[in-house]
Amino acid sequence: MTVLVFLDPAFPAGRIVDAGTPALLATDQGVTRGDGIFESLLAVNGQPRKVDAHFARLAGSAHAMDLAIPGKEAWLAAMTTAVTAFTSAEPAVLDGHTTTNVVLKLIVTRGPDGAPTPTAWVQASALSPALAEQRAKGLDVIFLDRGYDSTISERAPWLLLGAKTLSYAVNMAALRHAHQQGADDVIFTSSDGKVLEGPTSSVLLAHITDDGGVPVKRLITPNLDSGILPGTTQGALFAAAQEAGWELGYGPVEPADLLDADAVWLISSLRLLAPVNTIDGLEIGTAEVRARLSAELSALLSTTH
Amino acid sequence: MTVLVFLDPAFPAGRIVDAGTPALLATDQGVTRGDGIFESLLAVNGQPRKVDAHFARLAGSAHAMDLAIPGKEAWLAAMTTAVTAFTSAEPAVLDGHTTTNVVLKLIVTRGPDGAPTPTAWVQASALSPALAEQRAKGLDVIFLDRGYDSTISERAPWLLLGAKTLSYAVNMAALRHAHQQGADDVIFTSSDGKVLEGPTSSVLLAHITDDGGVPVKRLITPNLDSGILPGTTQGALFAAAQEAGWELGYGPVEPADLLDADAVWLISSLRLLAPVNTIDGLEIGTAEVRARLSAELSALLSTTH
Repeated sequence: MTVLVFLDPAFPAGRIVDAGTPALLATDQGVTRGDGIFESLLAVNGQPRKVDAHFARLAGSAHAMDLAIPGKEAWLAAMTTAVTAFTSAEPAVLDGHTTTNVVLKLIVTRGPDGAPTPTAWVQASALSPALAEQRAKGLDVIFLDRGYDSTISERAPWLLLGAKTLSYAVNMAALRHAHQQGADDVIFTSSDGKVLEGPTSSVLLAHITDDGGVPVKRLITPNLDSGILPGTTQGALFAAAQEAGWELGYGPVEPADLLDADAVWLISSLRLLAPVNTIDGLEIGTAEVRARLSAELSALLSTTH
Repeated sequence: MTVLVFLDPAFPAGRIVDAGTPALLATDQGVTRGDGIFESLLAVNGQPRKVDAHFARLAGSAHAMDLAIPGKEAWLAAMTTAVTAFTSAEPAVLDGHTTTNVVLKLIVTRGPDGAPTPTAWVQASALSPALAEQRAKGLDVIFLDRGYDSTISERAPWLLLGAKTLSYAVNMAALRHAHQQGADDVIFTSSDGKVLEGPTSSVLLAHITDDGGVPVKRLITPNLDSGILPGTTQGALFAAAQEAGWELGYGPVEPADLLDADAVWLISSLRLLAPVNTIDGLEIGTAEVRARLSAELSALLSTTH
């Protein structure tokens, strides 16, 4: 089931709308032009995670799109209403679980042409069991060319490369292409051969080296100015890993670096840390090392909020 | 005013929906992911123009997106219903005009997750007077980098470069960027320096040369395999111009070719043929030649249907 809560000045806690009833004008530019932005996050035991990081990214997307969006208080109130309505309507989520997970999606569109304010709502829904399976079993992925040079983002802000917009058709097409090839997911590369991100995730890699008998653990992600989204979960994990003694590195990352890594992950707010078993059919590290490092980093990630 | 007609097997002529009433589920992937396609065309005196070309392009977009869309009969019926409802509700469109123009937009989305069929509708609305003004006064445009190499389209079908998708956020951002610079519109260039298209138009240029006292008129547009949309109005005009003795050419076109042309136009189904006065502040040809060639080609275009 899905709970929808629209942000509406007349309803300080948000306006609940039946998800089976049409709620959007067909002229909304969110649908006619993919003209809007979003965030996806997890609420664990009723608490939305990494709220500040998600609001910061939403604000960045809004700025890139020249979109005036509602304030944090209105979002937080609608998120609380959505989580409460979802968990009371789906008590099964609670049964037999010590932890409840609710997926929250925050969406803002430009509204119909000439609308004085955007259309904004929160969607609450269940976490797909497929994501836990991805964490447990790992992923087979392929490299796909994103078509952009890794240096274009700052030169060409109209390409919206750092914004999380509703114009996700290419991301979805890349995933369909991967599935047709028998793969689970995609890692995008730039036209100048740099590793970027997944269609719905950030990319991480680990290198374990030996410094005179002392293991040195290094966690690396592509540099943000290569035109990728700032990963909120990657950011949270990096902070926790640094506390735990990991060294951190920021790209440029090349495909050979991934193939040569001890482990590679796709990481995002909903699926969390999913190990990559193979890229283009080539195994990354060994199953034992992938499992060990995944367990270590997942434990670190679970301490973040 | 806007008339909406949803394609619905239970309503062979289409189902009219009040445009001021919500008609879409907020979970439709058309809005949550810009996951859908569209066409815009003009109905003149009740007759939709270039119907076959628009259906062919819609089918191509659907194929690229792996989207099963309704058949032509259902669209034609809904288009007729939409035009009839629009013109009867807006008799003012008829008053004092010998020609009536209605803008038709055909939209298909993937529907909510797991939907067995897409969501499809026709929108009828008035033609913006700004478009006639663009034809009369001409446009100041700027070049903006589209970020893609002109050879990537065929190598990377997941980039959907030949599909007219609902993911138009970049097109809209480019137009906002142009307006902030005081320009009216944009001509996209590729990362390898080729002229591509406008955010909502095709690009044409004319070169007039003299062959021993006989003027040779040549009309040129960028090659389709550079990752641009096939222009339905460009195609119709090319056919008519060839009949009238023009030579035709297909790219690659470079920015210098436009600056050096006798005239440049942005051409699309709604605005038709709008002359470009300046690009990046540099005048194209002369006002007299632009006006003369625009009149000649507009007359040819008006003979097409």
